[in-house]
Amino acid sequence: MPAVSAPSPVAAIEAAFARLAEWDDPACFISLRSREDALARARALEAEGSLGRPLYGLVFAVKDNIDVAGLSTTAACPEFSYRPHRSAFVVERLEAAGAIALGKTNLDQFATGLVGVRSPYGIPRNALRADLIPGGSSSGSATSVGAGIVDFSLGTDTAGSGRIPAALNGIVGLKPSLGLFSATGMVPACRTLDTISVFARSVELASRVATVAAGYDAADAYSCELASPALSVSSSRLRIGVPAVRYFFGDAAAEAAFAADLKTLEARGADLVELDFEPLHAVARLLYEGPWVAERYAATKPLIEERPEAFHPTTLKIIAGAKGLTAVAAFEAMYKLADLKRRTCAMIESVDALAVPTLPRAYTLADLAAEPVVYNSNLGTYTNFVNLLDLAAITTPVGQRSDGLPSSVTFIAPAGSDGRLAGYAARFGA
Amino acid sequence: MPAVSAPSPVAAIEAAFARLAEWDDPACFISLRSREDALARARALEAEGSLGRPLYGLVFAVKDNIDVAGLSTTAACPEFSYRPHRSAFVVERLEAAGAIALGKTNLDQFATGLVGVRSPYGIPRNALRADLIPGGSSSGSATSVGAGIVDFSLGTDTAGSGRIPAALNGIVGLKPSLGLFSATGMVPACRTLDTISVFARSVELASRVATVAAGYDAADAYSCELASPALSVSSSRLRIGVPAVRYFFGDAAAEAAFAADLKTLEARGADLVELDFEPLHAVARLLYEGPWVAERYAATKPLIEERPEAFHPTTLKIIAGAKGLTAVAAFEAMYKLADLKRRTCAMIESVDALAVPTLPRAYTLADLAAEPVVYNSNLGTYTNFVNLLDLAAITTPVGQRSDGLPSSVTFIAPAGSDGRLAGYAARFGA
Repeated sequence: MPAVSAPSPVAAIEAAFARLAEWDDPACFISLRSREDALARARALEAEGSLGRPLYGLVFAVKDNIDVAGLSTTAACPEFSYRPHRSAFVVERLEAAGAIALGKTNLDQFATGLVGVRSPYGIPRNALRADLIPGGSSSGSATSVGAGIVDFSLGTDTAGSGRIPAALNGIVGLKPSLGLFSATGMVPACRTLDTISVFARSVELASRVATVAAGYDAADAYSCELASPALSVSSSRLRIGVPAVRYFFGDAAAEAAFAADLKTLEARGADLVELDFEPLHAVARLLYEGPWVAERYAATKPLIEERPEAFHPTTLKIIAGAKGLTAVAAFEAMYKLADLKRRTCAMIESVDALAVPTLPRAYTLADLAAEPVVYNSNLGTYTNFVNLLDLAAITTPVGQRSDGLPSSVTFIAPAGSDGRLAGYAARFGA
Repeated sequence: MPAVSAPSPVAAIEAAFARLAEWDDPACFISLRSREDALARARALEAEGSLGRPLYGLVFAVKDNIDVAGLSTTAACPEFSYRPHRSAFVVERLEAAGAIALGKTNLDQFATGLVGVRSPYGIPRNALRADLIPGGSSSGSATSVGAGIVDFSLGTDTAGSGRIPAALNGIVGLKPSLGLFSATGMVPACRTLDTISVFARSVELASRVATVAAGYDAADAYSCELASPALSVSSSRLRIGVPAVRYFFGDAAAEAAFAADLKTLEARGADLVELDFEPLHAVARLLYEGPWVAERYAATKPLIEERPEAFHPTTLKIIAGAKGLTAVAAFEAMYKLADLKRRTCAMIESVDALAVPTLPRAYTLADLAAEPVVYNSNLGTYTNFVNLLDLAAITTPVGQRSDGLPSSVTFIAPAGSDGRLAGYAARFGA
């Protein structure tokens, strides 16, 4: 697919640096490619031309737990930092398609959190309202797109990190099926649940980026061969499952906006079916109470054993808690998950997709300072179960809240449904 | 498929009890259905007739870690014993097809072992030579078929328990793809690796039993919808992968017999391809050194915590060792397994099937008494990797060793290949 127009890569890089200076948030990026390097890459691209480069001249940001050759990877932990010789598999594919990486964005340390405030590099400023949290863990990747610095960005998503910050910054967040994007060159959080994800200001672009990023990688044991995520349009009526009982933790504006969003869905061809989400919430509880945090421990060994003081205090508390978990408990939780997967499978397959509020409540920085852990968990109410159940998801603004913030809906369907989910988001999104 | 002839179920039961008395091994069965019950069932069957009952009048034995309504399930641990109200899903299917369960067979306690000597109910006598171990863990299920007491039997297979005793008793052992047979009503050993398995004196019957036993069970979270295991005949030349380096632990007769078996395979249409089995042996080591033993601990809780003295000393030593394993180590082993799966997948798919000696050496009871643990591990050389890699397997006698024992070969291929594997075993087997 050729780019609709072929902008000048050099002009795009100049504009990105200009917008970056204007936005003036030292907490958004952890490191930047030098202007000279970026312009050299842009000029080389211009010499090669746009033919066969579906992302020609687009500028992107990369969450700093994904490798870009020549820039350090920190995972928001300076003591963890290393300088990769090679870019991540996915980054290489995007660059080969004509996109230019601008730099590495801030995140909740080791991608642990949904808030965006757990980093020694500061708190990225929310693109919509400075008193709101940016959301996390892919905080800088979402704000850099929301603020218009880059065209798109890469995040990661283990429990909602590719969706929560999209909603909080009014943009699209695409969480692909597990294994669709290679994880080679990504610092794992929970290797069995992780995926790289995409942020963009439109469903069409997020989907175009995903189509380029997707590809089987023999070197990643969790990479799969799945259907292309290319946006697939459908105009037929759809059965959309929505939670019968909804949690908004007191955010009346969110509740009202979601009700209005459902009217929009109906007006655009959705037949709504209320479903019992309790088994999905049980899956989510399993994530927080279960053994998967041990994967974070495995991913940060030996640093956590040798230099625990290198960690953000909240991150340390969460990950270090995994040390005492037993293998027996790990298998017991896997059996519970298998049972819940079996119990929820028929419900999920009874509809074309689920539609949920991306987050239950838009928390402020002040809220989080007062309740750093419970509110983090609350944020994951509608995201946590997705990766454990191996589902695909896409988040898009649909309507508007009474306070002017966009209201975001996430569409969810089984693994391999990425293309049709993008079609739903394009049909129902703002 | 109707039974070839329709024997009298009553006569079959009478013959089974007569052969049982003649064989006179108190260690073969742990419990028996009463003669009256069995005859009542046989008479009821005769009244119903053979139509639509592919296993009409066949008598079978059930490993005592699989439920048969009305008989206790002990898993060879008297203190664990319970009396199920309902038969296992698979047993119900076999009975509905006209087969009659005779009783429950001895096993290595909690299906932990490949030897058949770890049971408080004694050591089942090998059907071929009394000085040999029966093999395990499905010891009584294999000897009862080998001795001609029953037509077929159910075992279980976590790491080779459905294959090793088949080889040691000169019969066929069918280890289906994981999830093909429901595990409802089976005492788990390692829930993520376990399957019920089938022993019979012919490939044709083992395959017919498997075809009846197979079926999706919504109540078992690990049950899958897979292709029918019905025997599929092929006369085309086959590419068969064999280990380039072979281990027989000093059993020259086994080594010579396997070489002769390969000649037989070639004569019957196999093109042999020598493969590097080292990555498969690495998978096997992961089973013994890794966290999966924690599944055995989970399966025997709370008994192992409250009354460890109820266990066989060797079994206790193995399972209790799992208590100290961490969730971190469990996930690390799963990553290693995923990597090994990826590394071995192409090799396994490059051939129609692998052919391996079922066991490297036929150990005697005296051997095992001297070395109870190391020789047990040696036995699994060619079986251990199969369940971890989610492969299907079938074991059949092919030729004969210089000492007159049958020489057994196991054919192995990816999950879902059960039907064609049975076809290979029928073509190449004795």
